[in-house]
Amino acid sequence: MTVPGLPMAVPSRDLPTRVRIHEVGARDGLQNEKATVPTEVKAEFIRRLADAGLTTIEATSFVHPKWVPQLADAEALFPMVGDLPVSLPVLVPNERGLDRALALGARRVAVFASATESFAKANLNRTVDEALAMFEPVVSRAKSEDVHVRGYLSMCFGDPWEGAVPIPQVVKVCTSLLDMGCDELSLGDTIGVATPGHVVALLAALDEAGVPVSALGVHFHDTYGQALANTLAALQQGVTTVDASAGGLGGCPYAKSATGNLATEDLVWMLRGLGIDTGIDLGRLVATSAWMATHLGRPSPSRTVRALSHEDTEEH
Amino acid sequence: MTVPGLPMAVPSRDLPTRVRIHEVGARDGLQNEKATVPTEVKAEFIRRLADAGLTTIEATSFVHPKWVPQLADAEALFPMVGDLPVSLPVLVPNERGLDRALALGARRVAVFASATESFAKANLNRTVDEALAMFEPVVSRAKSEDVHVRGYLSMCFGDPWEGAVPIPQVVKVCTSLLDMGCDELSLGDTIGVATPGHVVALLAALDEAGVPVSALGVHFHDTYGQALANTLAALQQGVTTVDASAGGLGGCPYAKSATGNLATEDLVWMLRGLGIDTGIDLGRLVATSAWMATHLGRPSPSRTVRALSHEDTEEH
Repeated sequence: MTVPGLPMAVPSRDLPTRVRIHEVGARDGLQNEKATVPTEVKAEFIRRLADAGLTTIEATSFVHPKWVPQLADAEALFPMVGDLPVSLPVLVPNERGLDRALALGARRVAVFASATESFAKANLNRTVDEALAMFEPVVSRAKSEDVHVRGYLSMCFGDPWEGAVPIPQVVKVCTSLLDMGCDELSLGDTIGVATPGHVVALLAALDEAGVPVSALGVHFHDTYGQALANTLAALQQGVTTVDASAGGLGGCPYAKSATGNLATEDLVWMLRGLGIDTGIDLGRLVATSAWMATHLGRPSPSRTVRALSHEDTEEH
Repeated sequence: MTVPGLPMAVPSRDLPTRVRIHEVGARDGLQNEKATVPTEVKAEFIRRLADAGLTTIEATSFVHPKWVPQLADAEALFPMVGDLPVSLPVLVPNERGLDRALALGARRVAVFASATESFAKANLNRTVDEALAMFEPVVSRAKSEDVHVRGYLSMCFGDPWEGAVPIPQVVKVCTSLLDMGCDELSLGDTIGVATPGHVVALLAALDEAGVPVSALGVHFHDTYGQALANTLAALQQGVTTVDASAGGLGGCPYAKSATGNLATEDLVWMLRGLGIDTGIDLGRLVATSAWMATHLGRPSPSRTVRALSHEDTEEH
């Protein structure tokens, strides 16, 4: 239901005036969906996201196809969207991946580290330090070619094997990634267990360690419904980069819930209410997510998409 | 997925140390569900909620059965749970409803006003002032019998017909209800359009008008995924009474989304992470909501229920 004038915009002096949304639906979202999406549909998805006003759209991953078959078409996809007037970061796990990305003209790449040994082992078959050592030449070469590097850090709050993750352990990996040359970090709550106080505590510890908040993004999953509240807490600490996934696409293969990333639409609704400019056309974004939901064969888990899309009205 | 030690509890100095959850699933939840639930199942639901540690459980409504057929069994239900060692508020629309509730021994009642003329007309077929006039003798008689009175106020943030609701208009009805003798108010975002800045602005205006925050509860719907972020904002303003519905039961008949009230489980997860004591056994609560979901024939919309219940694990 669209009601003109809603949400009412009430700007707050305690919050940033601008927020950059790092859209991860096409990569983190589709990577964790069961359905295989044709390359042309992925390209159209990215085009529609750009048309809706998103300016940073993570496009795909140059991981070995054996590990992420859903994104095995990275070589074909990237050139189909490379001309869009938006930033199109891509994931690269190692030097081979970086070579492939650079050969296609990628100007922003991302590596993915883990804050816990268990997940480093499960996801990368390495220790945390071995994984960092693997990323070092990747980051170094990317920087020498003036390519922007984002460092993803998984399991910053909790881990399915280890439980709560000690904050100093997370800070240590963060500073390693920044020392290595990463331009920005994305603090991931991979299994969605964070709560706002924990978010504030981690950000305070990073601040104390000398990490500038401008180098930090937050990446919340909505497994326990906490993603937007956690985002609010992060904004209150000065964070201005927020990862989100159109329609709430995605999920964590280690958590058997249908809920995935923070939905971009739910985030945009909140930011609009907070008077924070994003330049995003919410109607177009909702239509894009509803369209992608038909390709995936399941309704979007985003509350806002359900409330605003016609599909929902017809269902009930 | 239950992981011991999660969420990690990180108490905050800026937040209340205790929060009272006003559980509305059995009334606001079931009232808006399509399925008709047998009286014995409702009674068992309330017993299980009490067993999970909820201490304020709104039981039913003494509205004319013609208007709310789902709760037409109030007379039969109330005596089945009246002996539980918890508070069992009931809704009463008028003096006739109050008579029925008092005859059964109810010690807490609630009236329901509207902040907007459109909803007062749609829900009560009266103007806002006419509705207040109707409640005046109800509140007055309840108070003379030392019965606790809650005043619900619908459409405090947005209205499907009128759009954004001016804050002074909400403050005016709030003060009328308190002047009338209401012990506490529940500020309702009936269509779920509020965002955190709007919540802060309304609470600040009420504070300025001399309304003590201890007399205020918040009642958010999750239509656009904002309920928990709004709750966090309210807690930061000192609110200590939060309405929630086990499993996220309910919905608004004027919004065609499947999402309803803030889910009690998602709230409890956040409060636990914030180190705020509720005395609630989350596992029992999740099991109760999963059990009720089988009676309603649809999965719980609560993220936490889906993540923690075995049903979900089996589905995927």
